[in-house]
Amino acid sequence: MNADIINPFLSSVSNVLSTMAMLEVTPGKPSLKNDTVSRGDVSGIIGMTTATISGSMAITFPENVVFDIVNRMLGEKVTKVDDTVTDLVGELTNMIVGGAKGLLEEKGYDIGMATPVVVTGKDHEVIHKAKGQNILMPFNSEAGTFYVEVCFDA
Amino acid sequence: MNADIINPFLSSVSNVLSTMAMLEVTPGKPSLKNDTVSRGDVSGIIGMTTATISGSMAITFPENVVFDIVNRMLGEKVTKVDDTVTDLVGELTNMIVGGAKGLLEEKGYDIGMATPVVVTGKDHEVIHKAKGQNILMPFNSEAGTFYVEVCFDA
Repeated sequence: MNADIINPFLSSVSNVLSTMAMLEVTPGKPSLKNDTVSRGDVSGIIGMTTATISGSMAITFPENVVFDIVNRMLGEKVTKVDDTVTDLVGELTNMIVGGAKGLLEEKGYDIGMATPVVVTGKDHEVIHKAKGQNILMPFNSEAGTFYVEVCFDA
Repeated sequence: MNADIINPFLSSVSNVLSTMAMLEVTPGKPSLKNDTVSRGDVSGIIGMTTATISGSMAITFPENVVFDIVNRMLGEKVTKVDDTVTDLVGELTNMIVGGAKGLLEEKGYDIGMATPVVVTGKDHEVIHKAKGQNILMPFNSEAGTFYVEVCFDA
């Protein structure tokens, strides 16, 4: 998978978190993810299709990181993964892929977005079944580190 | 959501399991799912898009049920959720949505399929974020009971 596809996701994550949560995030170095262990406790997952390739993105937050983001965005103190948390993770997932979709369209990729699914549970694993490599992107912030995974066919 | 959309998934699950795993399945009564608790330990999730609506499907297997299905399909005895199990759940997810896609096309719905994502973990929860109702369909079989959830906007 080339930088053409990855970079719009990197930009979109930073844009969405800075606009919606007033949270500046610093992208770490993308790497290939060869294991299936989730780096967090709450994951937003979304499927994407284009005319030629399809794939999926997951954004995964440790509990303490997502609780801090909920507090920044909604001014609510949450201490467990409830509907407020999963709704917000679903919304962030939508906005990030929506932002990336816009940037990808400028490069000639026309992306169809499915609706997000949010998965919770300590020690859950998320395994992308697209045939391409799974790219893991860490993002560091005042709220802590969270992760985005993108996997496309080809 | 109407029967036009649900029935192709019911048919496709039965077709795929009977063809690929020689497993006859009996669909139970579909119901609205209002909680988020996953009925199983391994879930295949796939996003779908049409020109007008988008959504997601999850197929969820308790461990003992998916182990039995692996044994029927591959002749392998597995006792833990490993790559063999998640690959097979990813494939089944693909085939079921692929089959439903064919049936839906006959009714004039043109479905774009994303690639599947497989989620594992005891007590994981899968929360569909499409705006429509989440339809839960139980399937009974000699291998045990497993569940399909379909949720579309509108």
